[in-house]
Amino acid sequence: MSFERANAVVGQSGGPTSAINATLSGVIRACLECEAVETVFGMRNGIEGLEKEDIFPLNPYFERKPSQLELLAATPAAALGSCRKKIKDDELIEALYKVFEKNNIRYFFYIGGNDSMDTIMKLSDYAERHRDEGIFDVKFIGVPKTIDNDLEVTDHPPGYGSAAKFVATVMQEICRDCAVYTQKAVTIIEIMGRDAGWLTASAALSKYLTGIGPDLVYLPEKIFDVEEFVKDVNKRLQNPDKPYVVIAVSEGIKLSDGRYLGETKSAAGDAFGHGTLTGAGRVLESIVRDKIGCKCRSVELNVLQRCAAHVASACDIEESKRIGYAAVKYAIKGESGKMICLRRLKNSDCYRTEIFAEDVKNIANKIKVVPQSFLSSDGSGVNDRGIDYMLPLIKGELDVIYEDGIPVHFEF
Amino acid sequence: MSFERANAVVGQSGGPTSAINATLSGVIRACLECEAVETVFGMRNGIEGLEKEDIFPLNPYFERKPSQLELLAATPAAALGSCRKKIKDDELIEALYKVFEKNNIRYFFYIGGNDSMDTIMKLSDYAERHRDEGIFDVKFIGVPKTIDNDLEVTDHPPGYGSAAKFVATVMQEICRDCAVYTQKAVTIIEIMGRDAGWLTASAALSKYLTGIGPDLVYLPEKIFDVEEFVKDVNKRLQNPDKPYVVIAVSEGIKLSDGRYLGETKSAAGDAFGHGTLTGAGRVLESIVRDKIGCKCRSVELNVLQRCAAHVASACDIEESKRIGYAAVKYAIKGESGKMICLRRLKNSDCYRTEIFAEDVKNIANKIKVVPQSFLSSDGSGVNDRGIDYMLPLIKGELDVIYEDGIPVHFEF
Repeated sequence: MSFERANAVVGQSGGPTSAINATLSGVIRACLECEAVETVFGMRNGIEGLEKEDIFPLNPYFERKPSQLELLAATPAAALGSCRKKIKDDELIEALYKVFEKNNIRYFFYIGGNDSMDTIMKLSDYAERHRDEGIFDVKFIGVPKTIDNDLEVTDHPPGYGSAAKFVATVMQEICRDCAVYTQKAVTIIEIMGRDAGWLTASAALSKYLTGIGPDLVYLPEKIFDVEEFVKDVNKRLQNPDKPYVVIAVSEGIKLSDGRYLGETKSAAGDAFGHGTLTGAGRVLESIVRDKIGCKCRSVELNVLQRCAAHVASACDIEESKRIGYAAVKYAIKGESGKMICLRRLKNSDCYRTEIFAEDVKNIANKIKVVPQSFLSSDGSGVNDRGIDYMLPLIKGELDVIYEDGIPVHFEF
Repeated sequence: MSFERANAVVGQSGGPTSAINATLSGVIRACLECEAVETVFGMRNGIEGLEKEDIFPLNPYFERKPSQLELLAATPAAALGSCRKKIKDDELIEALYKVFEKNNIRYFFYIGGNDSMDTIMKLSDYAERHRDEGIFDVKFIGVPKTIDNDLEVTDHPPGYGSAAKFVATVMQEICRDCAVYTQKAVTIIEIMGRDAGWLTASAALSKYLTGIGPDLVYLPEKIFDVEEFVKDVNKRLQNPDKPYVVIAVSEGIKLSDGRYLGETKSAAGDAFGHGTLTGAGRVLESIVRDKIGCKCRSVELNVLQRCAAHVASACDIEESKRIGYAAVKYAIKGESGKMICLRRLKNSDCYRTEIFAEDVKNIANKIKVVPQSFLSSDGSGVNDRGIDYMLPLIKGELDVIYEDGIPVHFEF
């Protein structure tokens, strides 16, 4: 069989994760193995770079170097750089098409979250609208990524399992740290997830698995009630055998009037007169100090949730590679305007998934929250159904390569 | 040879670390192997529990169960519980002696930092003062522990290497996370160490090893100058090839008037009118926002520095076990009022240490800061001499046992 070979381009967009480079490695491997693809280009900083034709061939870094692909897969953040650029009009799309034509790029892969799927949707819409005019044929495929697990349709996206494994791992460690003293104390752990509580929910895993974990878990899926919170904490502080209380809280919890608990700003500030931003954890810390009066501290897990690749989930990294690989296969088959999804076939110890492609219109700009059927009524955040859903995703450890005491990463 | 067997007691005190249970495992193993020791008791919550005779025999948990000792060594925080209690008068000492006599305890091991060494000093002083009265013979041995590395005499204590490995590992990860965007941004990482900058200094390791690490490192050993800071940051923001600046800062940096930069409290607070405590990182964040005006965020590494045992240093954990083991040997030989120390015999790739015991008077209540000879003048915090000192201590990875995706810990 003979056919004309064409080029591909791949980019990364939105907040980085521990798994986004594993997905990239899957895309690159498939392109290297695929007869139809001659060169796979990387966009520097997503469509922000692509617009300026800031692309470079990835083949030389990986051809006959499988170990480099493995190293890339174990490297956190976005090796190609990222951006927050969205498509607002056809002008940008036309600029991108010029780059496609000039470089004979017929396959476009974009690894990202909700915003990136909006990009895929707009690009494929444009192609559809101009098909009769004989527009240069490009296939647009979205490849999911987010630690927030808030993408619709897919069972879960790459990135969530590793972030959840980090959260579950450090929750056990922090709870042990909290358990050493005999005085009453409250520790509040603030976890990422502005609109969905999936990552905060994973804090409950350590308690389920080991008995050591947060006593209370607050997700944005439930309206936050300050009085109830104070009552819940006070009740748990009465346990004479366990003087410490650990609370996991989503940065996105909201009051009944719709305000985020953590969106307020203090006016006076520090010695220099600077104002300081507060988060949900800090606000709860103040509430405990004022209304309960015991020792209290708040801890933000912060960026480590999305970049602590040294404790990435092997399940997540393997799925990320598979999803990246499959994206290329779907594009070659002629699909466009699709996002690559996972469907869970079996759960628990027989956990197994299959890959499919879904119209990106059903995904872009939507948010999947934790369903009510996963929420518990006892304050622990999620019930056993929620645990069953999360547990397979954090399993397995990567064989991280260390040199001189710290992990080795890939770099272009 | 026949002699009367006696009992031992071991306790943990002060802030927990990733290595304090490894030291405990060394003490227990030596006691189990030692003819002179019949039962080794654990104090619950250090001398706070001991005073109330809250002790329990450790032998049943570990006899003929070497794997349990290994599990204990890989478990963060203080398995026996901890306390902050200090000895203020002879009354407490007399109460402790009653427990010693009643339980035939002749060997006392206390694992902790500066305050715990003060406890050892006061107990052995008391014994010395009452020797002629035929006081019940107890040997008091201090076993070092601190992530701050601020104990005198010993080359370094258990706990520092693992904390430094965590800091170096996540600095590389966070810096990669910061590198993905093209806009100017400053990220400030606040690191523990109220009076000494050893742990903050370890942030420089990732830059030395991989080229990826903080651009500026601020230790408490140097007076902090706000104007100079703004100049340093502004200068680095001018680099067109690298728009992001990452700063590692010790929580303990001080202004020329002696105030901690982070000791201030904001008055107005959040929506509920609560005041919020600020730290050095938050204050620097405000300074960058006000005086430079670019995007800025601050990240506190917080308690994970002392409890992230999943990324503990194998060098640290092995030394911790050896030190705990040696403590028992010194006590049996008749030493008292001593702390077990490390002396570095060879450095770099041939790194090797030997153990010795030092009079606790030369250690208790003193603070070892980073020497001027380790500090760099270029803003990167430490020079190559400092790097050479730290590097061997973070080497090697533990074979952490995972079950269902998170580490398995030991629990009494």
